[in-house]
Amino acid sequence: MDPCRLGAAEASALIASGDLGVEDLARACLARIAEREPRIRAWSWLDPQQVLRAARQLDKTPRIGPLHGIPVGVKDVFDTVDMPTEHNSPLYRGHRPGQDAGCVATLRAAGALIFGKTDTTEFAAAGRWAATGNPHDPTHSAGGSSSGSAAAVADFQVPLALGTQTGGSLIRPASFNGAFALKPTWGVVSREGAKLYSATLDTVGWYGRSVADLRLLAELYEIPAAPSGPIPAVSGLRIALCESPVWSHAEAATRDAMAEAARRLAAAGATVTRLDLPQDFAWLPTEHHKAVLHGEGRAAFLSLAREHGSRVHADFLSRAANGANITPAQLRTAYDTAARCRGAFDDIAAGFHGVLTPSSTGTAPAGRNPGNPVFNQMWTLLHVPCVNLPGLTAADGLPIGVTLAGPRFADFALLDVAERIAPLLRGQ
Amino acid sequence: MDPCRLGAAEASALIASGDLGVEDLARACLARIAEREPRIRAWSWLDPQQVLRAARQLDKTPRIGPLHGIPVGVKDVFDTVDMPTEHNSPLYRGHRPGQDAGCVATLRAAGALIFGKTDTTEFAAAGRWAATGNPHDPTHSAGGSSSGSAAAVADFQVPLALGTQTGGSLIRPASFNGAFALKPTWGVVSREGAKLYSATLDTVGWYGRSVADLRLLAELYEIPAAPSGPIPAVSGLRIALCESPVWSHAEAATRDAMAEAARRLAAAGATVTRLDLPQDFAWLPTEHHKAVLHGEGRAAFLSLAREHGSRVHADFLSRAANGANITPAQLRTAYDTAARCRGAFDDIAAGFHGVLTPSSTGTAPAGRNPGNPVFNQMWTLLHVPCVNLPGLTAADGLPIGVTLAGPRFADFALLDVAERIAPLLRGQ
Repeated sequence: MDPCRLGAAEASALIASGDLGVEDLARACLARIAEREPRIRAWSWLDPQQVLRAARQLDKTPRIGPLHGIPVGVKDVFDTVDMPTEHNSPLYRGHRPGQDAGCVATLRAAGALIFGKTDTTEFAAAGRWAATGNPHDPTHSAGGSSSGSAAAVADFQVPLALGTQTGGSLIRPASFNGAFALKPTWGVVSREGAKLYSATLDTVGWYGRSVADLRLLAELYEIPAAPSGPIPAVSGLRIALCESPVWSHAEAATRDAMAEAARRLAAAGATVTRLDLPQDFAWLPTEHHKAVLHGEGRAAFLSLAREHGSRVHADFLSRAANGANITPAQLRTAYDTAARCRGAFDDIAAGFHGVLTPSSTGTAPAGRNPGNPVFNQMWTLLHVPCVNLPGLTAADGLPIGVTLAGPRFADFALLDVAERIAPLLRGQ
Repeated sequence: MDPCRLGAAEASALIASGDLGVEDLARACLARIAEREPRIRAWSWLDPQQVLRAARQLDKTPRIGPLHGIPVGVKDVFDTVDMPTEHNSPLYRGHRPGQDAGCVATLRAAGALIFGKTDTTEFAAAGRWAATGNPHDPTHSAGGSSSGSAAAVADFQVPLALGTQTGGSLIRPASFNGAFALKPTWGVVSREGAKLYSATLDTVGWYGRSVADLRLLAELYEIPAAPSGPIPAVSGLRIALCESPVWSHAEAATRDAMAEAARRLAAAGATVTRLDLPQDFAWLPTEHHKAVLHGEGRAAFLSLAREHGSRVHADFLSRAANGANITPAQLRTAYDTAARCRGAFDDIAAGFHGVLTPSSTGTAPAGRNPGNPVFNQMWTLLHVPCVNLPGLTAADGLPIGVTLAGPRFADFALLDVAERIAPLLRGQ
């Protein structure tokens, strides 16, 4: 097997046992990138010589931690001390932030090989789209805003990559590219040194090749784990099927994926129950998410507009000027409804091992359009953990994922459930 | 009048009319600092030559904005492109972040003269205390964590300064030093480029010499304003007197200050009503604030602990290791109770023009102990705007402030009310 195809957990074990050199793994990833980058364009910055120097250094160093020598792509909205941080914005060309973002520093302290910066929608928000193509068909989008991170992991270029989600920027690209992704419970991983858009919504997460890869970083960041009972085999799972308040946005690919996932779960003996959320949730994915996003986005982009004026993309000038006309009353209603629903959803979700819900409206759009995050926004606002489970393929031949969600702080239990379900969706 | 004694709004008008040069103002402030710094030690970094160069440049430039030439001190937890950002941490000695924090960039784009960096409790959190002394008696503390900012403004060194509050780091130093301060509604001023401690609690705010000074920055940052009725004269004000659930922490100075403020308001014709908050609020200032602070502080300081190990102050190693043993259930309860109380407090406060409550447990402690934030923590967690009103003096001769709080997004209405009340407390 080409080492570039190893998952992070697999590669970590081989490096620990001495059966794989860090430089060998790095060279395999670099070779894959060299072959694929002209079409996929996952990277906004990557210096192969810098990677190899760091890899050789790690080969000479006693094992630092669980990520020793594991290549990790970093979405280019995270500060990095030894690479530019450009946010896909001409205003940040060549910007050097002087230190690592918290989550990057933690990776490095665990021995990770920070590989390069991955392309992103401008400021992980709006404005310019990433140049990244979908590994399954580069004429289609990789989604956004964590475009390059999702594509790089799905395309066997690196086994792990960091992303962020404010609307649907982690889970939707995972669906489009066929990658595993975890959007953890809000607030459990430091967002220091990531570009700010909305403090209520911004969530650091990551992509991997397996549930085990997702768990590796959940353990590294010491995500708090609410106590949970033992997770049974698939035949003992109680799964809620939640179309969510925005089901009307589901295209055929998404409707089929949800039905197929439910069918396979039921065929394997799981109890699959339809879940209709209370009326209080009705406007979370749309009006309430929008109020928070644009209400807080006004503050987030004000300085950019003041400093750079018309050099700033119109999308951000509009946010700074409250172009969406969000009123304090709308913002208050959004905050308070979301907070009420967080508690309500925790209670509802406690009755199931997982809540299955769409990861995207359909498969990756043609071109570079990052797609519609409407199916992800409610979960982001609810602060609950979400795992994208890949494996299904739509009629157009592109991947389509489904989301497994759970109550706040059930991240580890959810990963256990995801591990049971993942092989069903991959047809294993 | 020595120009260093001008408030920001006064100085701005004189600079706009050509009656005061930016360099003259800067020289007056520098002279005051040169005289006072050996005892007060408000500054962690200040280069008089750099200040004068920038001042002369501003004198040559057509008026840039409302802050043109106004000296502003910046708490040394905000990134600054042309000054070190050290967080009072040996780990950040000489650190250069490569760009301004959002709120600093907005100041600069409005013509502000960024004067220097002010001393702070380490990372605005714990660990090392600021060296700053109280201008009214340098053997006493200036409070914390925004120690240098509060002292510099109260001591006529600069008319404005930025600070942050996660527990009581803006309002308590304002009380101790006798400064006006605004802790705005949570989320309305970008916290990008400020050291992260708790995303739920961290709030950017500022100190000024008057309510007009506070309003100057509220307008600059375009804080959203909920519609409010006209604000009457003092004789028409309805003021709630809220001892808060932690009244048992009030020392004689605080009990006296609250009584005296109520007496003067009533004497001026205001209706002063005692407000007892519902039982749901009982643990907000203590258990629930602590759960959020330490729950989110674990994530915030994890990378520091991983990167620097035993070189990190024990306070932060403890936070990274969840030394307070905050459980997910405690954190969830804290989040949900706080959210519930936010809505409830908005409703309660809507019946008053302002809620009067203690700013500190008493006057500034001897030495450099930053004091107890217990009276501020509930308001921080409630996300509501708070103004510290100075003017009263305790039996020990030190200043003591009182807080005026209001519902979320009532910042501007609250400033109007504060403007009515301020002269009563100053004995004017």
